[in-house]
Amino acid sequence: MEVAELKGVIRDLETLKLSIPQDPSLHASLDQLMSRVGHLMEVAKFAPSRREKVKDMSAEVVDSNPYSRLMALQRMGIVDNYEKIREYSVAIVGIGGVGSVAAEMLTRCGIGRLLLYDYDKVELANMNRLFFRPEQVGMTKTDAAVQTLSDINPDVVLESYTLNITTVQGFETFMSSLKHKSFRPSKDGIGVDLVLSCVDNYEARMVVNQACNELNQTWMESGVSEDAVSGHIQLLIPGETACFACAPPLVVASGVDERTLKREGVCAASLPTTMGVVAGLLVQSTLKFLLKFGHISPYLGYNSLKDYFPTLEMRPNPQCSNAACLERQKEYLLAQPARDAAAATVKAKLEAEALSAVECPLHADNEWNISVVDDIEPSTMDASSSDVLPEGLARELPTADAHQNLSVAGSADASVEDLDDLRKQLEALNAD
Amino acid sequence: MEVAELKGVIRDLETLKLSIPQDPSLHASLDQLMSRVGHLMEVAKFAPSRREKVKDMSAEVVDSNPYSRLMALQRMGIVDNYEKIREYSVAIVGIGGVGSVAAEMLTRCGIGRLLLYDYDKVELANMNRLFFRPEQVGMTKTDAAVQTLSDINPDVVLESYTLNITTVQGFETFMSSLKHKSFRPSKDGIGVDLVLSCVDNYEARMVVNQACNELNQTWMESGVSEDAVSGHIQLLIPGETACFACAPPLVVASGVDERTLKREGVCAASLPTTMGVVAGLLVQSTLKFLLKFGHISPYLGYNSLKDYFPTLEMRPNPQCSNAACLERQKEYLLAQPARDAAAATVKAKLEAEALSAVECPLHADNEWNISVVDDIEPSTMDASSSDVLPEGLARELPTADAHQNLSVAGSADASVEDLDDLRKQLEALNAD
Repeated sequence: MEVAELKGVIRDLETLKLSIPQDPSLHASLDQLMSRVGHLMEVAKFAPSRREKVKDMSAEVVDSNPYSRLMALQRMGIVDNYEKIREYSVAIVGIGGVGSVAAEMLTRCGIGRLLLYDYDKVELANMNRLFFRPEQVGMTKTDAAVQTLSDINPDVVLESYTLNITTVQGFETFMSSLKHKSFRPSKDGIGVDLVLSCVDNYEARMVVNQACNELNQTWMESGVSEDAVSGHIQLLIPGETACFACAPPLVVASGVDERTLKREGVCAASLPTTMGVVAGLLVQSTLKFLLKFGHISPYLGYNSLKDYFPTLEMRPNPQCSNAACLERQKEYLLAQPARDAAAATVKAKLEAEALSAVECPLHADNEWNISVVDDIEPSTMDASSSDVLPEGLARELPTADAHQNLSVAGSADASVEDLDDLRKQLEALNAD
Repeated sequence: MEVAELKGVIRDLETLKLSIPQDPSLHASLDQLMSRVGHLMEVAKFAPSRREKVKDMSAEVVDSNPYSRLMALQRMGIVDNYEKIREYSVAIVGIGGVGSVAAEMLTRCGIGRLLLYDYDKVELANMNRLFFRPEQVGMTKTDAAVQTLSDINPDVVLESYTLNITTVQGFETFMSSLKHKSFRPSKDGIGVDLVLSCVDNYEARMVVNQACNELNQTWMESGVSEDAVSGHIQLLIPGETACFACAPPLVVASGVDERTLKREGVCAASLPTTMGVVAGLLVQSTLKFLLKFGHISPYLGYNSLKDYFPTLEMRPNPQCSNAACLERQKEYLLAQPARDAAAATVKAKLEAEALSAVECPLHADNEWNISVVDDIEPSTMDASSSDVLPEGLARELPTADAHQNLSVAGSADASVEDLDDLRKQLEALNAD
């Protein structure tokens, strides 16, 4: 509701009052009308108002900077250049329990452009997962998502596609939207930097797989079990890792909609917790991929009943049924010498840098006041100097000298427990 | 914005039009006004409207049932009685990046009652994490949370406490609100079933620790590192596990606000991904604790750079500096014989049930049509019967007979990778 529009109504009413005859009852009803609109204006002042767009991401630490805590990742040494995130385009297929939260996380991280694909509508039955609100029931998931996301961060370019990618027409639009490069014409490859699959059925996953194999596009797959307590994410690089068709499930739906296979009146369970964790892991991998930090697990599982997070790696199947996958595998093998040469160049460069680093300090400004100390054994350290703490800090426990017999309860048991756990996991794997 | 109020404005304008003289320009401006208000009414129709309260949680599979996917957890055999969640009260201290998402997850799960504690206001600098929206900037976090949560699920009883628990007055209110039992007078112990600590500093954690030790209240602690890429959750049962003072950090703030210790202009980094994962793990543990399913890790870490999730267990420190902790430890040891006796009774009961189960089928109705089959070796199975699939299903891969030499690329490598990972972890732990 626009306060400005209501102001216009009041202005018009005032003009009207001046131009009508001096009839007391007419003027009284006009006054009543104006006070009514005035009240509406008061209410409207508390209605949602959007924040201004931000031109450059600033690292300034003020309450009004929506990017200060993200730009701090640079200062902390986690990423080299956070602002590069504004150049990237991510496509999210399936705006359900995982996809909608992934979209919100990327929006709040200030991603450049999001492409959202879904054909479904918001229902009250979706309210047990994050993101959608009861007042959005009946809207398409893409429209509701654009509404919420553009309010949260007007800097993100949002493109919504209300379509089913498993139809012929839907697939064509899906492919052409992925290829479109007007957002950043200079980029290599197609128009998006990553595709996230957040769909809930095998057929749609196979379609995303087909598209990404054809387009030679890296993508990430996610899924949550029907009993709501497990999930996984997976990185798929055409030709380099297994594609989704390289090791398909053993039994699949054939010629019918998978969802009609479910028994009448029975629906899958879902939890905001499991889906939130899977979305968090998925977008964390997305950030690592786009901003080049940390290790991206090729496959990461989440078994919530046991708090177990298995990881594994899957190489492509040379007898994969997907023709585009086989082509990408061939290309990947052909490019092996070029990759080896590039790796050798990087290695040589790093070695040269390491040599020159001996001659000059690595961080001349030393913003964090970190200094390199000799690796002396604690027992030989000079107590008088090591005991000095900066102003405002105090030791929580007495020094080791004062309480030699103090039992440190936790740590010893802890690592033993951890070892036992690992041994059990090893035994279970060996038994397979 | 009330559609009804705007309708009233239009009605008044119509009455006005009838009572003023037949002046064309007057009537034209009145018509313009009416179309303007009519447009506002259209816009207002899409403004938030809240859903009705739900008396009982239904498992009915219809789009309009907000609880169908949660009640399905019962049908799937994950929980015994999902609806019991409506009896429970959870206190969340700190409604920031983790606490607000935890509150939303519990609200969407249909928790009975939430108690929210925070003294801070919403800032644009919070927008890089989930939950708060730009239009809530300036509101207290507790008010903004109640606004959003009551729209999402009007069935949840929300209590908000805008206070600082580290002040004398704040601590008193905190304690008395935890004790208050009017929501479910018949419950054992104090008025809440679990306390979740989602604060960002040591001082506040020690206050929650003090309160829970004094009240003998189980709680869970959560935290995210200043570089935004690690986090943890921890279960604390007074007397049984280490309390937060049993193994405190080695260096802590002394007599000053911790936040002033940070360098001018430097702020901690934060990410919606890490905080979303930590909130998801925290509320997953909360659901396991309240609804009694799965294993609750005493401590679960999340190292996002390596996708590593360490677990450990910490026993209480017999020389803990917290007097209430020492008292709880004494009580716990004294109650050991009673616990042993109870465990023996449960064991005997389970054995008796196992014996009687042999005599009658466990699930007489067999809703999922699951039948027990003999554990025959695959090679000796009758191919003609095992090859029959239900209608609508087809095998994705040819049978093993047809393609004996088909290489299954992924699985073999996968488990080897996994074993290597585990071996490396073991070696790292042994080296400590």
